[in-house]
Amino acid sequence: MSLRRDDLMNGLYIWQDTELFCFGIDAVLLAHYPVLRRGDRVLDLGTGFAPIPLILSAEAEKRKLLSQIHITGLEIQERPVHLARRSVAENGLADRIEIVKGDIKEAGSLFAPASFSLITCNPPYLPEGSGLLSEQHERAVARTELLCSLEDVVRAAGRLLKMSGRFAVIHRPERLPELFMLMKEYALEPKRMRLVCPRASEAPTMVLVEGVRGGRPSLKVGPSLVVYGEGQEYTQEIREIYSR
Amino acid sequence: MSLRRDDLMNGLYIWQDTELFCFGIDAVLLAHYPVLRRGDRVLDLGTGFAPIPLILSAEAEKRKLLSQIHITGLEIQERPVHLARRSVAENGLADRIEIVKGDIKEAGSLFAPASFSLITCNPPYLPEGSGLLSEQHERAVARTELLCSLEDVVRAAGRLLKMSGRFAVIHRPERLPELFMLMKEYALEPKRMRLVCPRASEAPTMVLVEGVRGGRPSLKVGPSLVVYGEGQEYTQEIREIYSR
Repeated sequence: MSLRRDDLMNGLYIWQDTELFCFGIDAVLLAHYPVLRRGDRVLDLGTGFAPIPLILSAEAEKRKLLSQIHITGLEIQERPVHLARRSVAENGLADRIEIVKGDIKEAGSLFAPASFSLITCNPPYLPEGSGLLSEQHERAVARTELLCSLEDVVRAAGRLLKMSGRFAVIHRPERLPELFMLMKEYALEPKRMRLVCPRASEAPTMVLVEGVRGGRPSLKVGPSLVVYGEGQEYTQEIREIYSR
Repeated sequence: MSLRRDDLMNGLYIWQDTELFCFGIDAVLLAHYPVLRRGDRVLDLGTGFAPIPLILSAEAEKRKLLSQIHITGLEIQERPVHLARRSVAENGLADRIEIVKGDIKEAGSLFAPASFSLITCNPPYLPEGSGLLSEQHERAVARTELLCSLEDVVRAAGRLLKMSGRFAVIHRPERLPELFMLMKEYALEPKRMRLVCPRASEAPTMVLVEGVRGGRPSLKVGPSLVVYGEGQEYTQEIREIYSR
């Protein structure tokens, strides 16, 4: 066990066990991709140490929406659930964020159908069988589709989102055709997308996608989100995202 | 009728009737996206004035593959068929390029199943009903899905490609989810993709996709293809494509 308290640079902090895993830039980018709306009921599938609920609540606070939204984080692993609850409590967000211990594959029976207006997920990127067998267990679950597949995630989102609700997800570009196919299959029409590239001239390493339950087919692809400038420094857009 | 002879800048020229339509940068980008292989049997669906067969044959000539490939252009409209055949004959390519008059919807019976190793298509971008009613007929057919839908194109490619054959297509980013879904449905797994952006910081206006019949799912997204530099001049990569 290696407990660490990190400053989220938005007035909040997060507890993580760095022996298990740590959230990365993908969670930060995903948390800032959907636009929060008054009255949103948010579900974060596979929330880990809850970086996405914490970042969303800080964003809501700045936009004076915090009292009007509620966020649920669903996480299957014991220790992340414990630390996520600790972060929520110590940040004074217990009435705005609830951490539920449970399985994404059973999310359809844990929550009422069509009970959320926004569902986020930073899923394991690697198909089952492609992880390292020697890997520490909690990290393997976060990285590889051991406990839930991409289809499990999309199916849960399709069942739990109300009509016109948004599903926001970040994934590897390699999985984009499968992601789009599954989203269409579960009536989550892909409506917005951005590639995330290390540098402007480089191939993307991640892709942000937002679908709308029951949406009309027409994808708006935004400019690519570039992480680094000429050197090792973040671009202006990334700095703005981290400072929001 | 307004006949025009354009230099393709690769040693060939093309006849077009500018009252109908003219090929654009999308045809040029598409023609350069797949990599020609020795022995390729190529089919260009909806070939128009045949810019793609002509550019492919020039590329093959430079790589000393011309005698080892054959290209068929399928076109439904009378006047483009006539001018495409004229361009093919006058460029001395009658034994390398054949222009067939026919309907993409009937392509499955015009050619033997699994008889091509590469199929290209620069299809109409707009769904039926979104074109201008007042538009000149041949142009409307080239721009809007009046005579064939995206599914007709993908179905034909799925039937006519042999196993491991490539399907290369350019389309609007708005249609990407539908394109991926159809390609997966007809066993043309999306394997390569590039967004095409007017400028590096701008949203893409086109997307190049190549699928492989029976391919293993895993999409390689390349760096975005940027058309213009700071001013109105083409980028180095676009200049190289036009001069190949």
